[in-house]
Amino acid sequence: MKTADWIAQFRPSQLANMNRHFQGIENFISLAGGLPDPDLMPKEALANAAHEVITTKPSALQYGGDLGELKDHLIELMGRRGIKTTHKGITITAGGQHGMDMFTRLFLNPGGRVMLAQLSYTGIQQAIMPYCPEILTVPISPTTGLDLDALEAQLEAGAKPAFLYTVAAAHNPMGVTMQLARRERLMEIARRYQMPVVEDDAYGFLEYDGESVPALTAIDPEWAVYIGSFAKILAPGFRMGWIVAPEEHFDTLLTIRRLSVLSASPLHQNIIATYFTQNNFSEQLDTIQAAYKRRRDVMLDAMAEHFPEEVTYYKPSGGMFIWVELPKDLDAYEVVQRSAKEAAVGFVPAMAFVSHPDDMEAFKPYMRLTFVRYGEEVLVEGVARLGRVLKEIVNEK
Amino acid sequence: MKTADWIAQFRPSQLANMNRHFQGIENFISLAGGLPDPDLMPKEALANAAHEVITTKPSALQYGGDLGELKDHLIELMGRRGIKTTHKGITITAGGQHGMDMFTRLFLNPGGRVMLAQLSYTGIQQAIMPYCPEILTVPISPTTGLDLDALEAQLEAGAKPAFLYTVAAAHNPMGVTMQLARRERLMEIARRYQMPVVEDDAYGFLEYDGESVPALTAIDPEWAVYIGSFAKILAPGFRMGWIVAPEEHFDTLLTIRRLSVLSASPLHQNIIATYFTQNNFSEQLDTIQAAYKRRRDVMLDAMAEHFPEEVTYYKPSGGMFIWVELPKDLDAYEVVQRSAKEAAVGFVPAMAFVSHPDDMEAFKPYMRLTFVRYGEEVLVEGVARLGRVLKEIVNEK
Repeated sequence: MKTADWIAQFRPSQLANMNRHFQGIENFISLAGGLPDPDLMPKEALANAAHEVITTKPSALQYGGDLGELKDHLIELMGRRGIKTTHKGITITAGGQHGMDMFTRLFLNPGGRVMLAQLSYTGIQQAIMPYCPEILTVPISPTTGLDLDALEAQLEAGAKPAFLYTVAAAHNPMGVTMQLARRERLMEIARRYQMPVVEDDAYGFLEYDGESVPALTAIDPEWAVYIGSFAKILAPGFRMGWIVAPEEHFDTLLTIRRLSVLSASPLHQNIIATYFTQNNFSEQLDTIQAAYKRRRDVMLDAMAEHFPEEVTYYKPSGGMFIWVELPKDLDAYEVVQRSAKEAAVGFVPAMAFVSHPDDMEAFKPYMRLTFVRYGEEVLVEGVARLGRVLKEIVNEK
Repeated sequence: MKTADWIAQFRPSQLANMNRHFQGIENFISLAGGLPDPDLMPKEALANAAHEVITTKPSALQYGGDLGELKDHLIELMGRRGIKTTHKGITITAGGQHGMDMFTRLFLNPGGRVMLAQLSYTGIQQAIMPYCPEILTVPISPTTGLDLDALEAQLEAGAKPAFLYTVAAAHNPMGVTMQLARRERLMEIARRYQMPVVEDDAYGFLEYDGESVPALTAIDPEWAVYIGSFAKILAPGFRMGWIVAPEEHFDTLLTIRRLSVLSASPLHQNIIATYFTQNNFSEQLDTIQAAYKRRRDVMLDAMAEHFPEEVTYYKPSGGMFIWVELPKDLDAYEVVQRSAKEAAVGFVPAMAFVSHPDDMEAFKPYMRLTFVRYGEEVLVEGVARLGRVLKEIVNEK
């Protein structure tokens, strides 16, 4: 099949379809997208850094590669996730999605196999699309994460995927964080079957209940590669992130970056590096973590108050999402159309994240809510609205 | 062949090799890369726009798609190249290279054919690389551009390339601008043989001798698609550009952009749009054009004074480059090693741009000089140094 035809015929993302239902509704509260709250972003500090860089650093406006100063900050940041790396093991990307595209180009060949959780971030599903891949799936649980027995059985049966993509910290959409022992077992399996693991750690710095669990790339820096992003910890508008991988991959990775975007923006690299140098990023991270933790707890309290008891949900230890199970006979896609129309509140049905079409039916009665986008008052109002609609729907059955 | 293996084994760019020869040389003057002069960039205006956007426009820091305000400015800008387009026919990219990557993904399939000039910008050679393409080449002249008879003969013989890539305005590396009648004939041929033409117009706004010739995309907006870039007219550090294509391609193009980088940076889109809204870009363009025109003329005068008469060169009507022919028995790669070592001056040997390895030998005695990077004094000094080395080499023969 022609590459472009394959891309064109890919089922339109349910997310994109859904936004249609949300448009033009007054006072709409969206518990859908994982959009960080701009009120928490360090606007003044970033604006000052931008002004200083543009007026005093001509190299920021010129062509350029990776900025050493930014790499220094990232190497330090990686230490918080247990990852030891060097200037030769890290490079800057045009955002998390670009990291997915780069690793896909590194590992995948046309028609190759990719292993995904049954539900996975739509960005990786899109990144692998042009390769017309065969998608293998692993069940995932909202309390423990990837089903490692199922994964091992598939590899034992000869699956040989080009890579496994996983969000081990605060999974999107399930919210679950894999604990250390399970991470160690995952990497032991990966090593045994020589399967690269692409770790998307977009939420790795957003842990709310004590120490964060070390990244998979900290556990096995040879078989795991790391995708980092500034989107959730600084601002998505930069479209900037980084990747960590074994040095042996870097000649090829740098060529892939050059052929795709030449380099990550030297201007943004300089702005972010200057911001990191002039400010205490730990404080900024503390501010975000504290705000999101409070919102998570407020939202869970509101759900306890307003949701019908037939609805089950899980408390995530980090990230941006709460995973919700509706009664088995409900279809979350129908629920969201009704909640948007009748109560001006929206969310993402789990079907939007199904990695393989065969699983579409099984994930009808599930939904993903985010707690990060609004302050507490709006959040509670959104949950109350959604609760009213859910109660009506449950009572009608 | 595995995609990554293909990428890894691609001959390292001669440009990259050459920079090795330049490193660590004191008072080095590089007439190599097409780097615009940061002294000509509107730093204060951009810094003010950045500060204002970051402090007052939260959506600039958030996820986002194309910014309508920026598209408005680009639609106006396209008018200067004779192109009429709408919000549905234009979209923002993460720079010119990203435009090449996007059109490659749109048109090319693994193992497909691409038509290139015998010498072409290395960025397109890299963009098509992952597809292991068959490269067909067309001769190109420093006075008239692409050899249209040769192109037509190949198409007549059944070549059927996925697309032709061309820089019709101020070709890189040859500097030649195709005139209107030849552009019309090119597009007539393209239409007759149903061959998409990917027009890289990076230098289209840098014309120094009167009116610029309309873009190929102005002549045939159905069979030509357009790659624009802010690199040469504003600042490369943004890594931002745009593409124009028929509406029918846009569903696929937007999917390609989403899977590769999600979107062009909303922050940079807002900074550039605000800069355009608050300032008179025509004046900025006039400033750049006047400075580069002066530098071109100063450089040509200096070449007339300092270069040996055995060396031939061409006056470009626009862009950044002067094409130089050395005596047939010279090898520009040997010349540059010597000029770097003995006179602290560098340039790019034409071999760096050879589209097909078979042509490597034929392009040994050619070189590309840029006149945009420095003010006039340094430029003259660079030419004088290079002239001394060239005279020595010619006299030794």
